[in-house]
Amino acid sequence: MRMYLAEILTIGNEILSGRTVNTNASHIARRLTSLGFTVRRITVVMDELDEISQGFKEAIQRNPRIIISTGGLGPTYDDKTAEGLSLALGRKLVINQKALEEIENKYRQLGLQITEERRKMAMMPEGSIAIENSKGIAPGIYIEYNGIEILATPGVPREMEDILETFIKKYMKTRPEVKYVEETIYADKVMESALAPYVKQLVKKYDLYIKTHPKGYELSNPSLEIQIAGSSKDEEEIRKRINECIKELEEYIKNLGGVIKNSQQENQ
Amino acid sequence: MRMYLAEILTIGNEILSGRTVNTNASHIARRLTSLGFTVRRITVVMDELDEISQGFKEAIQRNPRIIISTGGLGPTYDDKTAEGLSLALGRKLVINQKALEEIENKYRQLGLQITEERRKMAMMPEGSIAIENSKGIAPGIYIEYNGIEILATPGVPREMEDILETFIKKYMKTRPEVKYVEETIYADKVMESALAPYVKQLVKKYDLYIKTHPKGYELSNPSLEIQIAGSSKDEEEIRKRINECIKELEEYIKNLGGVIKNSQQENQ
Repeated sequence: MRMYLAEILTIGNEILSGRTVNTNASHIARRLTSLGFTVRRITVVMDELDEISQGFKEAIQRNPRIIISTGGLGPTYDDKTAEGLSLALGRKLVINQKALEEIENKYRQLGLQITEERRKMAMMPEGSIAIENSKGIAPGIYIEYNGIEILATPGVPREMEDILETFIKKYMKTRPEVKYVEETIYADKVMESALAPYVKQLVKKYDLYIKTHPKGYELSNPSLEIQIAGSSKDEEEIRKRINECIKELEEYIKNLGGVIKNSQQENQ
Repeated sequence: MRMYLAEILTIGNEILSGRTVNTNASHIARRLTSLGFTVRRITVVMDELDEISQGFKEAIQRNPRIIISTGGLGPTYDDKTAEGLSLALGRKLVINQKALEEIENKYRQLGLQITEERRKMAMMPEGSIAIENSKGIAPGIYIEYNGIEILATPGVPREMEDILETFIKKYMKTRPEVKYVEETIYADKVMESALAPYVKQLVKKYDLYIKTHPKGYELSNPSLEIQIAGSSKDEEEIRKRINECIKELEEYIKNLGGVIKNSQQENQ
């Protein structure tokens, strides 16, 4: 099965200082995973030109199908993503006419002039497409480079989400040919370390992603959330495979003295 | 002023799929920042040997003072951080005697035998120090390499936090000689884009980190949270510098028609 690898790049000192939790990366990761992509790496870099450029360059070198960045698009002096991306791609930073018109319109409706800071939000690497931002000002930047689709979004969550959905709906070309299915079961009274050798066997037998998430205390009161996930071109096939794996896993858990709680199905 | 750079490496497919938000990285980032470190990069990699090893190698090449990892230490087949770290450092993976004794003791108290999976948690790169885990089983791994302090912690938050605090209290050698101070002010009715040129000036004038975080809507109802932060060897000096900067910033905000809300002081 062909892997559709993706990367996420977060730009922002507020993430690196721990001031802000990187929920934007989680949102993008979930959305990409639901589409059948495998996110290979998330990188957070500082609001500095060299760091941003380096972050994009390294992601490009790993040759994923898609790179989505968040943060560093806006009117302030420390919003340097457009410039960093230009530098990484070796393309000139130019005014995007569509972006400029949209930005001018938004300020004009309030009787405001375009200033240097506002105009800055229309600067994009040459060859970019401006992705409309219906929740704010700064448009997203979409550009293809060496067959990689690159989308830069602002760091304000509602703007990032809005631009990401517009991108997926109207612009994105890479479409994984797979169906991704994920299920979760819950078990009490079984230790992660006791179940581990069986999980290992099942991963090999069924070629699935199985992850045990300990929720209680391993020794005194073990409780596990177990995620079983996989992708396939054939939805029926992947559902059948996951269900068989869960049946077998539940047998092992019971044999170890564990108790299965109501299973909860999540399909993304 | 000498920079104390730090890096954080998160190991875990559950972060990359968006299933789990990377709050562990935020916690470590906040803690390091409060100590006077500057976190330069956060990287999230898959639970795969090559990816983990590559993550450590790249961080080491950037030569920070400290690298803290979270995730991938435990009894399951997909806990590969110890092995990945060994590979990155070119050191053998060996049984750490102190770790093994601690692990054996914990299981013995429950009348349980040590198994291959449990024994695995005592495997560390040669030359490592096992950092006690009072909230779980897998000890942290502490190793110095080319003058870089490296600490690997498990992904269960309470275990990571416990090991991190023990490390900071008892083992960590790198101590930034700076005092880090951070304050926050809140302003309504001023647009981020209108304030941007003044913020730029103040950053240069005071050599501080100033970040505007838009909380409202830029056009219809602007509201800003503004973070002003800096480090200095001299606590009095940095507090004075930040206070003068805030005074000037508040003047600019008022001149732009903005309203200052009660300022809230955060010193970390």
